[in-house]
Amino acid sequence: MKRTALFISDGTGITAETLGQSLLAQFDGIEFRFITRPYIDTADKAHAIVEEIGRIAEADQARPVVVDTVIDVQIRDILAQANAFRVDIFASYLAPLEEELATHSSYSVGKSHSITHSSNYMDRIDAVHYALENDDGGHTRHYDSADIILVGVSRCGKTPTCLYMAMQYGIRAANYPLTEEDMESLQLPKSLKEHREKLFGLTIDVDRLAAIRHERKPNSRYASYAQCEFEVREVEGLFARENINFINTTHFSIEEISAKILVEKGIERRLK
Amino acid sequence: MKRTALFISDGTGITAETLGQSLLAQFDGIEFRFITRPYIDTADKAHAIVEEIGRIAEADQARPVVVDTVIDVQIRDILAQANAFRVDIFASYLAPLEEELATHSSYSVGKSHSITHSSNYMDRIDAVHYALENDDGGHTRHYDSADIILVGVSRCGKTPTCLYMAMQYGIRAANYPLTEEDMESLQLPKSLKEHREKLFGLTIDVDRLAAIRHERKPNSRYASYAQCEFEVREVEGLFARENINFINTTHFSIEEISAKILVEKGIERRLK
Repeated sequence: MKRTALFISDGTGITAETLGQSLLAQFDGIEFRFITRPYIDTADKAHAIVEEIGRIAEADQARPVVVDTVIDVQIRDILAQANAFRVDIFASYLAPLEEELATHSSYSVGKSHSITHSSNYMDRIDAVHYALENDDGGHTRHYDSADIILVGVSRCGKTPTCLYMAMQYGIRAANYPLTEEDMESLQLPKSLKEHREKLFGLTIDVDRLAAIRHERKPNSRYASYAQCEFEVREVEGLFARENINFINTTHFSIEEISAKILVEKGIERRLK
Repeated sequence: MKRTALFISDGTGITAETLGQSLLAQFDGIEFRFITRPYIDTADKAHAIVEEIGRIAEADQARPVVVDTVIDVQIRDILAQANAFRVDIFASYLAPLEEELATHSSYSVGKSHSITHSSNYMDRIDAVHYALENDDGGHTRHYDSADIILVGVSRCGKTPTCLYMAMQYGIRAANYPLTEEDMESLQLPKSLKEHREKLFGLTIDVDRLAAIRHERKPNSRYASYAQCEFEVREVEGLFARENINFINTTHFSIEEISAKILVEKGIERRLK
């Protein structure tokens, strides 16, 4: 069975999209088509969406699910005319929250992902640049200001995880690839030893690593099963000997890896 | 007035955090302390949270707001004992959605940000690596496979925006810094001309640019107001002459810039 879900917002659409995907992920049996419509901030755009929803309802032979975070009353009234099943977050929760907090909501548009919302917005941009500059073992002299240093073999997920932690949480995350040289000497490089308390390890299943490396350098020694197996075994041995906490990234998304690392290391996010 | 809000999940906590911050951003008058507690997936952890909430309620002299996306019934029952005002998303919406969709939800934990949810997870990792490899004018020969190429002066927000679009939407975003050489020749570099339809411009207020550059290279010519003013004026002139759509990033977050670009260019996200 096929259904369409629209995530509609007068801002970026991120909240509607995140909540909507989370709710609908609970319905395995249905194949959803997701459509995000951000910046629906005029009556004209709202009328256009209502018409679009009508066409989709006809084509699908079922009314779409609409998850929206529109604040403006006029636009809300127009959306209410759509032939849709509506998950209306603000209608459900703002009035009860007003009562609980004994104050009125400001009913202002696009607050949650705006630049003014984050008191330390520049920290975040700085963290992204920090992750870039300290990617792949670059600039090891900057480890003093790192919140965390991820270590692991090449292509086990260090770089995307560092960037995500920077972007989402404002955390300064460096990463250092353990290369064959480090492995053969069977110890941590000196630059890492000095920051042992900041280290966190990533590992990965051998066949997954081989597949990822094969995409990048087909039929190379680097991508061979034997080489991947050797590196993973050596690195996991190093983690055990040096008492470095680690997780296996094979079955986890970047979001999951990042959230697990924060919990394990007890690091607080720097962004509100 | 000060209140505490807890975002509790048996998964990453991203959905609870996103929705909670969006709802509470509507209450300007209240200073919130936000606490995220991901991976609350055992009865022990749930009991510990309930106790923590009790202590916070006492210290704040007001019960905390709890936004949760916990699926497990046993854990939900424990959380229900907390001295909190609860925004319980799944309780509010899963039953109505089950009725609308004429099917049962799977009530399975941590679906929305897991690796299995995204059918094209590797596309996303590839997009992140693509953004890194094509950052700052690198590898212009890969522009054939770009979805979009951001252009603008140094430090106007191109790199974080490209990385965000890659991470969040799986979009292959390159960026090219317009340098003084490009400006003096008063035309687009050849490598960009060939991909004119993929170009999108970023600009920024002069004093903001000078402040950002000053952080990086204090008292340099690069960071001087005069230099920033010259570059911004030339680049905005180039955008106008070459008919390149652009936005001013000064007052927008990375999320807002990215969402606006997708709308303006009509680019569809590659990730579900």
